[in-house]
Parts: sequence; C-alpha cells; structure tokens
Amino acid sequence: MIRFNNDYNHGAHPQILEALARTNTERYGGYGIDPWCEKAADEIRKYLDCPDAAIHFLIGGTQVNYTAISAALRPYQSVISADTGHINVHETGAVEHCGHKIQALSARDGKITAAQIEEEARLYRDSDIPEHVTQPKLVYLSFPTEYGTIYSLDELTQISRVCREYGLFLFIDGARLGYGLGAAENDVTMKDLAHLADMFYCGGTKCGALFGEALVITNPSLNVDFRSYIKQNGAMLAKGWLLGLQFCTLFENGLYFEITRRATELAQQIRRAFAEKGIPAYIESPTNQQFVVLENSQMDALAEKYIFEFEKKVDDTHSCVRFCTSWATTQEEIDALTADIRAL
Amino acid sequence: MIRFNNDYNHGAHPQILEALARTNTERYGGYGIDPWCEKAADEIRKYLDCPDAAIHFLIGGTQVNYTAISAALRPYQSVISADTGHINVHETGAVEHCGHKIQALSARDGKITAAQIEEEARLYRDSDIPEHVTQPKLVYLSFPTEYGTIYSLDELTQISRVCREYGLFLFIDGARLGYGLGAAENDVTMKDLAHLADMFYCGGTKCGALFGEALVITNPSLNVDFRSYIKQNGAMLAKGWLLGLQFCTLFENGLYFEITRRATELAQQIRRAFAEKGIPAYIESPTNQQFVVLENSQMDALAEKYIFEFEKKVDDTHSCVRFCTSWATTQEEIDALTADIRAL
Amino acid sequence: MIRFNNDYNHGAHPQILEALARTNTERYGGYGIDPWCEKAADEIRKYLDCPDAAIHFLIGGTQVNYTAISAALRPYQSVISADTGHINVHETGAVEHCGHKIQALSARDGKITAAQIEEEARLYRDSDIPEHVTQPKLVYLSFPTEYGTIYSLDELTQISRVCREYGLFLFIDGARLGYGLGAAENDVTMKDLAHLADMFYCGGTKCGALFGEALVITNPSLNVDFRSYIKQNGAMLAKGWLLGLQFCTLFENGLYFEITRRATELAQQIRRAFAEKGIPAYIESPTNQQFVVLENSQMDALAEKYIFEFEKKVDDTHSCVRFCTSWATTQEEIDALTADIRAL
Amino acid sequence: MIRFNNDYNHGAHPQILEALARTNTERYGGYGIDPWCEKAADEIRKYLDCPDAAIHFLIGGTQVNYTAISAALRPYQSVISADTGHINVHETGAVEHCGHKIQALSARDGKITAAQIEEEARLYRDSDIPEHVTQPKLVYLSFPTEYGTIYSLDELTQISRVCREYGLFLFIDGARLGYGLGAAENDVTMKDLAHLADMFYCGGTKCGALFGEALVITNPSLNVDFRSYIKQNGAMLAKGWLLGLQFCTLFENGLYFEITRRATELAQQIRRAFAEKGIPAYIESPTNQQFVVLENSQMDALAEKYIFEFEKKVDDTHSCVRFCTSWATTQEEIDALTADIRAL
Repeated sequence: MIRFNNDYNHGAHPQILEALARTNTERYGGYGIDPWCEKAADEIRKYLDCPDAAIHFLIGGTQVNYTAISAALRPYQSVISADTGHINVHETGAVEHCGHKIQALSARDGKITAAQIEEEARLYRDSDIPEHVTQPKLVYLSFPTEYGTIYSLDELTQISRVCREYGLFLFIDGARLGYGLGAAENDVTMKDLAHLADMFYCGGTKCGALFGEALVITNPSLNVDFRSYIKQNGAMLAKGWLLGLQFCTLFENGLYFEITRRATELAQQIRRAFAEKGIPAYIESPTNQQFVVLENSQMDALAEKYIFEFEKKVDDTHSCVRFCTSWATTQEEIDALTADIRAL
Repeated sequence: MIRFNNDYNHGAHPQILEALARTNTERYGGYGIDPWCEKAADEIRKYLDCPDAAIHFLIGGTQVNYTAISAALRPYQSVISADTGHINVHETGAVEHCGHKIQALSARDGKITAAQIEEEARLYRDSDIPEHVTQPKLVYLSFPTEYGTIYSLDELTQISRVCREYGLFLFIDGARLGYGLGAAENDVTMKDLAHLADMFYCGGTKCGALFGEALVITNPSLNVDFRSYIKQNGAMLAKGWLLGLQFCTLFENGLYFEITRRATELAQQIRRAFAEKGIPAYIESPTNQQFVVLENSQMDALAEKYIFEFEKKVDDTHSCVRFCTSWATTQEEIDALTADIRAL
Repeated sequence: MIRFNNDYNHGAHPQILEALARTNTERYGGYGIDPWCEKAADEIRKYLDCPDAAIHFLIGGTQVNYTAISAALRPYQSVISADTGHINVHETGAVEHCGHKIQALSARDGKITAAQIEEEARLYRDSDIPEHVTQPKLVYLSFPTEYGTIYSLDELTQISRVCREYGLFLFIDGARLGYGLGAAENDVTMKDLAHLADMFYCGGTKCGALFGEALVITNPSLNVDFRSYIKQNGAMLAKGWLLGLQFCTLFENGLYFEITRRATELAQQIRRAFAEKGIPAYIESPTNQQFVVLENSQMDALAEKYIFEFEKKVDDTHSCVRFCTSWATTQEEIDALTADIRAL
Repeated sequence: MIRFNNDYNHGAHPQILEALARTNTERYGGYGIDPWCEKAADEIRKYLDCPDAAIHFLIGGTQVNYTAISAALRPYQSVISADTGHINVHETGAVEHCGHKIQALSARDGKITAAQIEEEARLYRDSDIPEHVTQPKLVYLSFPTEYGTIYSLDELTQISRVCREYGLFLFIDGARLGYGLGAAENDVTMKDLAHLADMFYCGGTKCGALFGEALVITNPSLNVDFRSYIKQNGAMLAKGWLLGLQFCTLFENGLYFEITRRATELAQQIRRAFAEKGIPAYIESPTNQQFVVLENSQMDALAEKYIFEFEKKVDDTHSCVRFCTSWATTQEEIDALTADIRAL
C-alpha cells in the first residue's frame, strides 16, 4: 500500500537522522538553551529581515497554537478564526480549554477575509455594552489552509492592516508552511509573514523533521516571559537541542524550501491527473493537499492500492477524499497513482 | 568539562538511534495508533502482572504530570504532594494552571508518609463545611524523589492503603524510575507500582530515550477517553511511533533496567568518595542523584573540570550541590571525579 | 419615560420587601444552610413530582449557567447550544472561560431541534478519531428562548429522548421561566421540565425577586458535591437565607406564576397592537418579550416616551427593537403604549 | 440562643432596608450603570484623596478576590499570601481554579512581613531559570486579617515599598474593613490604603449591608476593561443599583464607620472579660473577632446560651473558639456574655 493519507506518516529527512547520529554523544544544556537552538534561530532569521525576531522551538502544532494564543490574550479576549481552522475543528477544544472563545467566521476555500475580520472588530468597538461579549483580540490564519489553499500577499496585507487598525494580533499557523511557500502561484515570502504577522511558525513535523515547530515572534510585547508559557504548557523539551539541530539542518542550506516545493509539485501532478480524468476538485489547491470528489466506486478502486483520507460523504454515490504528498513522496509513487487515476 | 549536572544532557542510547535509522523510511498511522506503540505497551505490560493496564506514550514529564492529574480531578479537587515535589516547585504552576490546588505537605528527605496523607484526608472527610475547602483527591509521589531517595515497599503499601480507604487516587511520577528500581536497597518492583498506584509512569527522557514517558493507567476509571486529554493538552505526538519505537527498544530486552542500574551504581561511587573525604551528604541518596554540602572553595575547585548543579547556599561558606549520573555516564568520568574528590 | 427595555429594571415584588423587613432582625446560619432555603426548596418541589430533586439558590443567571455547565463536564466535553443562546452571545465567554467549547447550532426562532442535536451527537459517536474533537455532552436550552419563543412539550420530549439515547445532559435556562409557563399556547409544566431535563432553573431576578435563581437538579449524579462548585465559583451568598426567603415568597402561594402570567398577557396586548397596525414581528413571541421591525421614524417617535431596546439595524430604514414587560408593568403603561402604537 | 458565631448572621442595617423600600418602584438601567452606583462611588472617593480611583460593586468576597486577582495576573504569575489568608484556606481553591498558584508564606498572627515578601520576589528576580517556577506578581493581604489583627501604617508602607520595587501588585481584602479601621490602636486610613495598595475593597456583607463589596482600583492599568472580568466571572448583578444604593446609605453619612467601630468596641469588652477571667487569647485581636482558648468544660457551659465558632482542638482539654460581634450586636448581648464569662 502506498500512503497518501497525510504528510506525517514517516520519519525525518535523512540529513536529520545523520545529524542526530553525529551529535548523539555530545552534551548540552537543557530546555532549549544550547548552541543548536541559537544557530537554528539565526538561520531562520536570515529569511526574515527582522533581526530582533524571537524564535522558540516547540514540539507540535496544537501545542504551539494554544500556547501562543493563550499567552497573547487576557481572559475576556477571543480568537477570530475560519470555521474550518485547525484550532476550531481538530484540536479537542484546546483553545477553549485555555479559557478563550473562538469566534468562527464562515470560510470560503478555507480562507477568511479582511472585511469579515473588520466587521467583527467594528461590532465590538462600537458596542455600548462590550462587557457582555468577548473582545476579539487575535486573528488566527493557516498558511496554507487546512484545504491546501493559500492567501495572496494582497489578502494578507489587507488582513494585517485591519488587525493593526483595530489592535488585533495576527498569528499564522504554518504547520505546512513550506508546502505553501513553494506553490507556483504563491507570492508570499517569510519576510512578508514576519512583517505582516505578530507571530507565525514554520512547521517541522510535516515538513521534514521528526517533530518540531519554530515559532517566530516579531511583536516584542508578545515575547515577554514567553519561555514561562512554554514550560507551563508542557511544551519545553528537556533535550531542546534536538529541536534546534533539526531546524538547523532544514534551514542552513534551504533544505526546508527545496523538499517541500518538490512535494507541492508532485501534488500538482495528482491534481492534473484528476482534472484530466474529469474528476472534480472539492477545492482547488495549489499545495501538497488535494481534495477531490470521487465516485464511491472510484474511491474503492483506488483504496486497493493507496491509503488516502476519507473526508466526508458528498452524496449517496460520491465522497470527498484527500490525497496528500510530503517531502518523502517519490516520483514513482506519483507515477503509479496517476496511472491508476487515468485507468479508472 | 565533564557534565554531571543532570541526566538529560545528551542524546539517546545508541540502540535507539539505530532503531530510528532502521525504520526511518517506514510509514505509519499517526497519533500513537501504530504497531510500535502497541508492541511497546505489550513489552511494558510484561513487567506489570496487570494485563489490562492502559499504556500511553507522552513526550515529557511536566506534560504527563498535569495531563494525568487534571484528567483525574474535578474542578474542586486538589492534589496532595510533598512540598519538594516536582509539580510544586519546578513546573511553573502547571497543575494550578489546570485549575487545581496543590496541598503541599512538609517532606522529609523528599518523601511524605501515609500518616500525613491520612491526616489531610480525614480533616476533609470530617469537616462540617467541606464546601469551603478543596477536596484532596489524588496523591502525587515521585519514585525516586527529587532528592534521589526512594520509598520502601512497606511505605508505598501503607500510602496505597490510606488512598484506597479515603478514595484518593495514587499517581507516581517515575521520571527517573529506572534509577530508583536499580538501587541496591530498593525492594519495589514495577509489579508493585502497578498494584499499589492508579497511575505511574516510566520515564524515558532521563533514562535512555531521546524523549518520552510511558504512562501506565491501572485504574480503568482514569482511562476513560484518556486520549482526548492527551490531544487537548498538546501531548499527542503526530509521529507517535517514535515514542513506541523508543520504549520497545528500552523494554524488550530489559535495556531500560540495565543502563539505569549501572548509572545508579556509578553514582554510589561518587557518594562513597564524598563520604570517605568527610564531605557530608545533604540527603543520603541510593540512586543516581547525589546532593552534598561542599565548602565553597571545594565547589570552586571541582567547577574547573566538572559541570554540576548548584542547589542553594547552606551558609556563608558552604553550598549544597547536585552530582547526577545517567545511563551515558562512563566509568572514566567517575574515576576522574572520584580522584579529584579525594584530592580536594 | 416608561421603561419597556427589559424585565429587570426595577426592584422586587412588594411581598418580598415586606418579607425582608419582617425578618431583618432574625439571625441565621450562613451560606444557604437555613430554614428559609429549606422551606423554599420544599415549596418548589411541590411543583415537580420529584421529591428527591436537589435545589440550590444562586445569585444570577450567568453564574448559574457556567457553574452548572462546568460542574457537569469533563475538560474535553462541550456544550450544544443555539447560536442565539445566552451563553453563546451575552455572557462574555464565561463557559469557554471555564474551559468548554460551545457547539453553536443554527437556531430557528431561537430554538434548536432534536434532529440537530442528534446529528452532532451521532457525528461524534461514529467518529474513528474522536480524540481530535470535543465530545458533546450537555445540551443547553432556554425556556423561553432569548427571542421569547417556547418549546412545545413534544419538542422537549424529543430533545430529551435524544439526550438520553446519546448520554447527553439536558440543562434548561429558565431565567424567564414564569413568562414562558404563563403563555397561552404553552403546554409545558414544571413537572415536565423536572422529568425531561437533568437540571433547570426558575429565574427570580427577572420574575419578581431582587435577585436569585433556583437551580433544580434532578439527576443525582450532577449533584455530587455541588455546593463545592457553588462556593468555588463565587456563587454562594453569605446570607443565603435572603435567597430562600425570596423564593419562599414567590412559590408558597403561586405568586411566581401569577405575576409572570399577567406580564405575558400584557405583552400580548403590545403584540396585538403592533399587528393591528401592520407592524411586523421580527419573531412571533407568545411571552413577555416582543421583537418588532419598526420604520426608523416610528422608532424615533416611540423613543420620545418609551425606553425600549434597540436590537439591530434591519435595513437602511428599518430596525429591530424589543419591548419587554415584567411583573411590574402596569395596565396603564400598556394602554399608553398601545394608544401610541395605534397613533403612529 | 445569642449568636456570636460570625458577622453575617442577620440582615442589613435598618437604613438600608428603608432605602430599598423607598426606591422599590423606581426603574433603573442595569448592570451597575445607574445613578446610585455613581453616587456611591463618589461618596467612597471622598475618603480616598484619589479622584481617579475606579470603584466597582460586586456581590461577595470570594467573588471579588478571584475576579480581581485573576484580572491582574498573566497565566504564569502567582499570588503571595499568608498561609492563613482567606484565599488560601476558605475559598475552595477559587484562585487556583482561575489558574494561579498561591505562594503561601508562614504568617504570624495572621500577618506577613515586607521582608518575607521581598525574599520571595528576590528569589524569582535573581533566578537563572525563572521559567521553571511561577512569577510572584501580586501580594494579597487582609485588613483586618482572618485572626482579627491589623497591619500598622508602618508595616503597610514597607510592604507597599517592596511591592513597588519588585513590580508586584498589592491587593487588600477588606471584607471586614470597617472593623479594622475602627480599632482603637489602628493608625491606617482609607486614604492610606488607596495610596499604598493597587486595589482594595470595603466589605459590605459583614459591615451592615445585605450583601456587596466595593472594590477600589487605584492603579489604572488594573482597571482596563474590568467590567468584562466582572461579567465573565458571574459577578455583575443585573439590578446593580441595589449595590450602589446600599453603599450610598453606608458611606454618605459615615454610617459604615460608626456601626463597625461600635462593634469593635463591643468585642473589646468580650476580650477584657476573658482576660480578667484569666482565659488566654489565642491571638490578641483589637477588632471584632476574638479568638480564645477555652477549657472544654467552659466551652460547653457557654454553648448552652451562645452560638460561637469552634476553630480547632488545642489539646485534649482545650479548644480554640471564636466570638464575633457585628454592627447588629447589642450591648445587652455583650452584658449577658461577659456576665457569663465572669461566672465560669
């Protein structure tokens, strides 16, 4: 069976395992205070044009999301998110568990707009009795989104402008960042993210690492005592250098961008194969996740050789499913799949 | 410089790195539902005499502590702990962050007694207006303790009896479990822990793994929907098999016990060297952590060649410091240190 | 100016003030352990056909809502509510502040249906990976709703059936309970609420008391140590008898039902006056709250003599407003308003 | 039976009931936005020399304590309190329920010192790894304390100085404020509290009101959106004017000070009677609470006619008990008690 079900179904890029083996007998200070974390932060900063950005290495995405969001908010403040946002639908209510309401906006193709955000913010600002509702204070976006779509630079710029006008923080979930940056139609850079957002992260778990996410905080007010939040939320790895080492490996020679761009290109081959076969996309995605609407018989046929993710029933005879490539997907796997799509 | 400052200052046992390399191109289901986690749980269960024990793999100790404790308690319930307990002094208030008071009892050598616990429990049970105070509902112990001491089987049995009489859960923090089980004077087994406690964990981070803790839940009422707590608390590793694989490696041939027992024996060489030199122990420890009271000049002399942990000032001329061995400590390192102790 | 803006804009029914004056020099035990609370509970139980129901007196509605909901739920469990439900829109995220997600269902006339609830519950029950989402565990309804509408006995019975089938608790917010029970078209009794719900409350603040809500818990599992939750949530009045005394006064001779039924009847006079004038209801309400869509010029005209609540802009020339009667509204006030409506 | 068990065992000062009766048919805006709250705040401000102080009216003490404390703190910050402090021993862990650790300092006569506070604050400030522990950020004191003792102006000034030097907020629980200000040996004024603390409150529940506490916030940074915290914590009374009206009655002619000073004087008569009888004070208290150590036979004798509070067993034949006066205690009640003490 060939796995296209997600982008975290096998180990790490070989260079990372080599780095682990090479340094295994070295000894380091704990909790992320070590030369590898320092160097990894420097390597990432090279892409940011933001020399004072703080960079913290955490273990996984849910952890980063709730730690960063709850550190930014006071108890009566809430998060604006797409209703399809990962924090709203796949993190077991972790943000609410930290005490904060998510104001879920109706997403289109996984995305929300500056206008939608402004409407929420203005409603609160203009209220006579704001104390009866939560105060929207942070906007959560995913880049790329949970449906593989990406925000354009213009869209992000408008969202950032609204956030600053209304005093909202902008936080971008980059669990799959590489796959978005590497899309053919993408016009956003890490520099842009650093300038437009207050915090964002470069996902490692889904982009070549064994595990780990690099959180970039460019708004210094959000970085005050941030390590206390990391520790309190169980997100401080004792052997923190394991995170630094991995991100060093990924960023010092651009490996991160190279391997994810390639995965995105492979996914576009799948996209084209489905399109040529006349199988409709559920949502058009320029990145490594492809959502298509299969006839159930097609779904069953492909399921004999491939593992992919069932998303939902569309009607009695059709289903929406996801095919996902990763840095580890091979051209051979793609060739097999596209041949089988053509043969459906 | 030779590091004796803690037991998490370098990578993993070589067999673990080999296992990672060997399996790196395999593909697995995510979130801990995979053959390695299943097999690791089976291997651990062999030591338990408790075939129905649930076993979950989490990433780090703080995470396990607050996840397990807060899953066990209702909002008005509190935790009984030694005042020196890790949850009370080194986890940034994570348990309180989850909403629960810690009732800290005065520890002796890092330990609390059945009698102390019973007094707290009885006070609550006999109160006319219990609703004005929190209800003690879970006892947290560390084995070995933060000072390297261990509970005897008799002490644990008495504590367990009090817990059951008063309806308290017993949870044992085994971040350094191996080092305690391997102590010459220890008479407690993993079977005993499984029978006496409701939950305990086998620490991996400090005992040979890159990271990871294996939580054993023997009280089925505490296991209901436990994976939801893991996910909500950011403690569910996407590539969960990395945890299973490590614990398999550690437990399938007893490696866990072997490497930690050796570290404990090395620590006893340090202990004897200090004793023979007339340097007093701060607390007598039969495990891998040694706390001694040095003259400041002695401390400065040793600090030229060794990294160890300053604990606190004892008086103007003396300090309490910790020397800690690990599975990675070598006989050569011990020989160097003991020679230098003798030469003080 | 005559106030129709809400049902809590003036003091208490005169009998309550008389009771306070009559007993002011008596001395009582504190925190709700006193003869008045005991007697009030007995008086309320007479309406329930549920002799073992536990009854607790709390101070206000938001307080009851979050205290009862968070006492019923484990951290990973969520609340199903109408999107227009008070807990979702007017309580500053108090439920989320206690750590729980609200799964807001699209309401029709302020109400949700058994089918909607069942769909949510089934989705969770049938999920392969439930640990990634919150578990719906409690349904929150308002009777009457925030829009003045009421559930029929049949609707409530169906909802209760779904809740029991899927193991959900049913909690009914009765902040305006009297106004709903007294509606001409209502077929629900307090007995029905006691049998169909696990918890509900009889609102005092809006129904004749100075303040206070009587929470009825008929599911004994939800009553375990409930006073601890009350105290911890700041909802235990030191002079608890003040609550018992008020509810005694309201319930021992049926005053509660009499004064709220009358207010509902007065509101129907407003409803008819608007209808006869051809002014459309925003939602048809059989209780004490009337929502109508006024031309802005009509709104301005009425605002010269009456205080009522602006709800929202409907279009450039129309607004939705609320007129609300209470136990304290007089026939003269209604006559003045209806005459002015006719004269618009 | 004559009640000396606490200071909240009967209704309100007659002037308050008269004010309620007089205004019962008036109609007001809700949630504390009304002329009575405004006027009450003005009356209290006259005693403060702090024209910009914000004043909020809440319902009860536990509610004020956790609302104010949790509004002031970030998640990783903790509260310094006497171990005997009300928040540490009688509020069902409400502060921890809000997520914050209480660092309990060993109290002497219910009080803590500037030196103790400074030691905690310095320990944190000087730590190399502060992220592993909570940050002390707020000092909670009671005036008078839970044992009836009071801080001198000099003691409070020193504590305030330490707080400002280390960036800690100072919050003073004044549930019994009047009884402390009226003590013969007191040298602290409300002006002093306003200048030395960041927040404090004037208790109403125990000092003549039916219920209610007036929270004074003199540090404007702590007042940002404070009404949102009140609402979210269930502490916003719908008919808020009931609180304003009561505090107006208490403060506009100094009634608050007069009635509590008298109660304190009556308590001193009890104190002298015990002393003259040779019955030792458990703690010497200049305010309305008297703690004495009775022989059990004496306790039983007095219990035939008086209700007082058992505190704890001192030894097999002695018990510590509390006698408490209030604004409602009469000279006749005192005369009876002191005669019976003399007759023991």
